[in-house]
Amino acid sequence: MADSEPPTRPHRDLPSIPAPAVKRLCLYLRELEALTEAGRNTVSSKQLGQLLGLTDAQVRKDLAYFGQFGQPGIGYDVNQLMTELRRVLGTDKGWNACLVGAGNLGRALLAHAGFERKGFRIMAVLDASPRLQNEYIHGLRIRSMDELDETVRELETRLGIIAVPASSAQDVCDRLVAAGVRGIMNFAPKRLQVSGDVSIVSVDLAVQLEQLAFQVSLGRRSGATPSD
Amino acid sequence: MADSEPPTRPHRDLPSIPAPAVKRLCLYLRELEALTEAGRNTVSSKQLGQLLGLTDAQVRKDLAYFGQFGQPGIGYDVNQLMTELRRVLGTDKGWNACLVGAGNLGRALLAHAGFERKGFRIMAVLDASPRLQNEYIHGLRIRSMDELDETVRELETRLGIIAVPASSAQDVCDRLVAAGVRGIMNFAPKRLQVSGDVSIVSVDLAVQLEQLAFQVSLGRRSGATPSD
Repeated sequence: MADSEPPTRPHRDLPSIPAPAVKRLCLYLRELEALTEAGRNTVSSKQLGQLLGLTDAQVRKDLAYFGQFGQPGIGYDVNQLMTELRRVLGTDKGWNACLVGAGNLGRALLAHAGFERKGFRIMAVLDASPRLQNEYIHGLRIRSMDELDETVRELETRLGIIAVPASSAQDVCDRLVAAGVRGIMNFAPKRLQVSGDVSIVSVDLAVQLEQLAFQVSLGRRSGATPSD
Repeated sequence: MADSEPPTRPHRDLPSIPAPAVKRLCLYLRELEALTEAGRNTVSSKQLGQLLGLTDAQVRKDLAYFGQFGQPGIGYDVNQLMTELRRVLGTDKGWNACLVGAGNLGRALLAHAGFERKGFRIMAVLDASPRLQNEYIHGLRIRSMDELDETVRELETRLGIIAVPASSAQDVCDRLVAAGVRGIMNFAPKRLQVSGDVSIVSVDLAVQLEQLAFQVSLGRRSGATPSD
């Protein structure tokens, strides 16, 4: 599990970054990727903050979690900061994922260009439906659920993406975890139970749309209160 | 804007429910919908909490934001509580939405059964690509972007769903808002600027996968620290 060469700022030193800061680190990385595509080499905390609606003080504070790279008057080196962020987030080494569910959503996720760019590779797609078995989508053969164990083992997929109906989501989740998956991204509208050493991120699209509707019915966005 | 009959607990009384509580209200509603499909008529705060990994005290506190419905020893009437939650969330009346982007993700969203069940109707789909124009998906004709203004006006779509590449997302957002949309659900991996009276919910799938990877690399889920 440990790297062969001693890291200068080991990962183990960073167990206490709060979740909202982690999310912001991911957003900084996204903006840096856009900047580098636009040919930019340096960026100030102020510019980075403006792109995300944050103060420059917040940006500096977040980036200080893992040491200072910015130089006063010059700013941050975009490439260096990207490298550091990827290392901290653990996406510098690349992650293999398997996808369960080859319906519309599964196909959309397979086609999601943003995953590959960030070092996530969907290595396999599985589906319970006999009708879909051995069809090819995006160059991947749709595997049967019977192939789950060997798929996870042989392709070393530590992440599993669940894009199946709510009724079968917990079963799929249990089978992924039993096969060795350590992180689950769940798109089924159901809260899944996992053991303590498995991480889970849930994306319930209808719930997010509902929250949006609530904001719109209040007629406000952030802090503004509706008048009579 | 106001209802013709005086509501017993007017919406305007509820401007200060914190965002995490709103999210929980949406999750309660989801569980209640599952319970009613399973034929259940009553539920206790304890049962509701167990389904979502919350304490019964938290459940009672959240539901107390808009009055008490639970009866000691009997629990909540599932149907009554669903009705109240939908009224509070503004989803009792139904919401019309239009979708921009008829790629893989757009098609997956159109097929998302969870939206309709929650009172969200995608009334129209638009796409900038001439190749797709006038094709039909899920019974809807793909409209050109030139039809955006009349679509929003005629179909009274107050919500807009953006499923286009990052490069065109801000332009699409501006056009939706100019046409009269008041809530935006954004799937493009880009932070959008909107004016203060427009609500926005962003779903960046790659950023969420990245956060999951970070959790997995730390080898912990909630509070557990990695050992040497």
